[in-house]
Amino acid sequence: MYRVDLNCDLGESFGHYSIGMDSKVIQIVSSVNIACGAHAGDPLVMERTVKAARLSGVAVGAHPGYPDLQGFGRRNMGLSPKEAAAYVTYQVGALQAFCRQQGITMQHVKPHGALYNTAAKNQDLAYAIAEAVNAIDPTLILMGLAGSESIKAAKAVGLRTAEEVFADRAYEEDGSLRARTKPDAMIEDEEEAVRRVVRMIKEGRVTAVTGKDIPIKADSICVHGDGEKALLFVKKIREALTAENIRIAPLGN
Amino acid sequence: MYRVDLNCDLGESFGHYSIGMDSKVIQIVSSVNIACGAHAGDPLVMERTVKAARLSGVAVGAHPGYPDLQGFGRRNMGLSPKEAAAYVTYQVGALQAFCRQQGITMQHVKPHGALYNTAAKNQDLAYAIAEAVNAIDPTLILMGLAGSESIKAAKAVGLRTAEEVFADRAYEEDGSLRARTKPDAMIEDEEEAVRRVVRMIKEGRVTAVTGKDIPIKADSICVHGDGEKALLFVKKIREALTAENIRIAPLGN
Amino acid sequence: MYRVDLNCDLGESFGHYSIGMDSKVIQIVSSVNIACGAHAGDPLVMERTVKAARLSGVAVGAHPGYPDLQGFGRRNMGLSPKEAAAYVTYQVGALQAFCRQQGITMQHVKPHGALYNTAAKNQDLAYAIAEAVNAIDPTLILMGLAGSESIKAAKAVGLRTAEEVFADRAYEEDGSLRARTKPDAMIEDEEEAVRRVVRMIKEGRVTAVTGKDIPIKADSICVHGDGEKALLFVKKIREALTAENIRIAPLGN
Amino acid sequence: MYRVDLNCDLGESFGHYSIGMDSKVIQIVSSVNIACGAHAGDPLVMERTVKAARLSGVAVGAHPGYPDLQGFGRRNMGLSPKEAAAYVTYQVGALQAFCRQQGITMQHVKPHGALYNTAAKNQDLAYAIAEAVNAIDPTLILMGLAGSESIKAAKAVGLRTAEEVFADRAYEEDGSLRARTKPDAMIEDEEEAVRRVVRMIKEGRVTAVTGKDIPIKADSICVHGDGEKALLFVKKIREALTAENIRIAPLGN
Repeated sequence: MYRVDLNCDLGESFGHYSIGMDSKVIQIVSSVNIACGAHAGDPLVMERTVKAARLSGVAVGAHPGYPDLQGFGRRNMGLSPKEAAAYVTYQVGALQAFCRQQGITMQHVKPHGALYNTAAKNQDLAYAIAEAVNAIDPTLILMGLAGSESIKAAKAVGLRTAEEVFADRAYEEDGSLRARTKPDAMIEDEEEAVRRVVRMIKEGRVTAVTGKDIPIKADSICVHGDGEKALLFVKKIREALTAENIRIAPLGN
Repeated sequence: MYRVDLNCDLGESFGHYSIGMDSKVIQIVSSVNIACGAHAGDPLVMERTVKAARLSGVAVGAHPGYPDLQGFGRRNMGLSPKEAAAYVTYQVGALQAFCRQQGITMQHVKPHGALYNTAAKNQDLAYAIAEAVNAIDPTLILMGLAGSESIKAAKAVGLRTAEEVFADRAYEEDGSLRARTKPDAMIEDEEEAVRRVVRMIKEGRVTAVTGKDIPIKADSICVHGDGEKALLFVKKIREALTAENIRIAPLGN
Repeated sequence: MYRVDLNCDLGESFGHYSIGMDSKVIQIVSSVNIACGAHAGDPLVMERTVKAARLSGVAVGAHPGYPDLQGFGRRNMGLSPKEAAAYVTYQVGALQAFCRQQGITMQHVKPHGALYNTAAKNQDLAYAIAEAVNAIDPTLILMGLAGSESIKAAKAVGLRTAEEVFADRAYEEDGSLRARTKPDAMIEDEEEAVRRVVRMIKEGRVTAVTGKDIPIKADSICVHGDGEKALLFVKKIREALTAENIRIAPLGN
Repeated sequence: MYRVDLNCDLGESFGHYSIGMDSKVIQIVSSVNIACGAHAGDPLVMERTVKAARLSGVAVGAHPGYPDLQGFGRRNMGLSPKEAAAYVTYQVGALQAFCRQQGITMQHVKPHGALYNTAAKNQDLAYAIAEAVNAIDPTLILMGLAGSESIKAAKAVGLRTAEEVFADRAYEEDGSLRARTKPDAMIEDEEEAVRRVVRMIKEGRVTAVTGKDIPIKADSICVHGDGEKALLFVKKIREALTAENIRIAPLGN
């Protein structure tokens, strides 16, 4: 039987600022990536988000990002791989403490935003992150863009990996995401988006923006909980997966 | 045979800013309290300080403080006990990740500055911190002002404790430190300071500022590495302790 | 003819985080207090908020707060008066630059949250802030709690003042706001709240929580734009003031 | 008679962290660039540095940088020109408030570190900064790398400019600084460094790393005050300039 993980970023509120429909989306995914206080989140938000994850029975991942709250971790920063790895270590550790307090084990680490995108292409950064995560706990799973340098580096250092795919994004022939600044970057038609995801899981293939079919591994699908429309799309994906006999479950064993 | 721990704050540099004679003082103490990125320290500093502690064979403790770099954690902040406990959890976890990368186990947690002083007097804050630390790892030792609410709360929740004493500070009759704003707050005479410490360890007593003898437990002595004079004083204490057959060792078992 | 200012906090969004119904409330007040990047706001938010104020024709004030984004400036911080004054100077100056870019003159300075509350009671802090503002620009108006130390200090250093009153808060006999932690702190009945405000403006009196009438000066009424209910209440106040022949206008001359 | 400005970065301490020999170098330069709380400096440091500049009679400039204290403003950040310009506005305004308190007028604005280097090459960023500074106060002088996009943009928007040269750095044929990562990036021989500076001022030429002579305008020489060696070099430059009948003076009129 086929299976796949549904993951969503969570715990992105900060102090007085609240964003995301965390309490709703947590009910319909299998894994969550929790912000760790650098690009979003704070200790109180992390504490209650980890607790909510435990109560909802979803698997927890750390979602470390660049130390840039004003830019929400989406602006590139000229950190050396060594610096970036130390920031990742810091954030993963901080979230692990809340996991231990809740009696749960962290499942995975998924870098956020600009860090995710840069690590997907930059081998040195990808290795530095993978080695840092491996040195913290070799049972952690590294989640990254399917087929990217992040995944290759994680495998090379001996970590388990979760290759992540996007339902609503177009792919280039080399497996990278088509930049949002280019035309046809988004899959606007929800039915098509769902069909593409099902095919990625069952056939391991997706049609690139050029029309050519490329191989892709889909361990986890990235979904969003930042609005009613996003939630409805997650439900549509869930229904399609169920109808196709694809089991939705965390990455675990 | 008597024994005592010598502890020193370490890893207080930040980015381009360097303070403390870390590489020297680490050679002459038995435990270090490493800043965790809130009031001082950053991920790179934490990484290299934990590594230095491993190489020097000193025991590592987390030194969480208020999130106030500009005030170096010395300004009070009106955090609720729940908030303060979450910040402590965050910081302890962050440092633990670097400890795991180095293959060492964190020995203790010692709150810093205004957080230390407030927890010493405020039962609610002391309990919130003790419970947070216990929930992260019940084998951690809570270091706090000898006889204070911090120590009482830690014992009440079942944590091991390390009662900390100060060689160069005067005590009030209730065992609290005499405020620096008052006269006679500091023990200026180094010989007297050393004699007081030896007596605290061997007799469990110290003479308060009023002249009255009070009981005190000395598991660890707080020393400083922020200048040549401070380093010389640590060496003087070490020599006196050795001459008195008091073994200097981490808190361990 | 009577006149009064209606003021509202504005520009409290930060980076990716958006709060407040700024574009709506700005249409129905006469002055706005714009966050200056310490407890809320950031340079981009400040830039567009000052521009919106110019376009709406409302007067602009700086709203400096403690440097505590996580606590939204509502947590007390143990800053010395000298430190607090330097932080106020910094923030006022930052906002003034955006005002100059828009070709408008800053009307007033109103400290935020815990800084506002502490300055209302603490003479040293009140003086330090008043002197700092006066040294930046002696034509600035200092807005503070009616009858408080903030107002007294501002008058003493020669600044013009705006005494601020609250429609929905109960007052103690000494003119201070009744703490929210106590019963009867809020005026729940909107009709009563409006009647109280009108009386403060026309008679210069308000009934304290004890039942005793006390004198109060109402130069400006604090209103909120953080939700539909709040906006409706502002409109209700506006209508009542208009019906009572009280002109709503900025503080100016 | 020839004249030139000697400028130095100042006020880079932060909270408990102290760097730079500010009180010494301020005696031997004619202009200072004061950090504005983003990459370095804080409100108290800014206050006392502006005061020291007034007492020493040196001209004051703002030294805005990327909001990255951990990286000291030396790491690139993917800010849009609009974002960067808003951050510059914020920081310039903050420092201006301290200038007004001291009764002095800000002379110039010199971006710091990665912002300086990027603006020197990136026309969009250079224009955004120049326009922001011009909109704050058109009498401000924009200091930037001699011949760079920063200078061109400032001239285009109508600002006065100060073209800055470096005594100890090699130049490429296009007038850019040779990257420190390349060989021969530094002029190690102090005598040669001094001769080069004198020639830049008197002849308006410098020998590029290729051996070819290129034109260069030297309105201000960048010097450092971060150690005894740096201070001695500044004194050596001063003596050489005096011997060559070159007057050292602020940029002013």
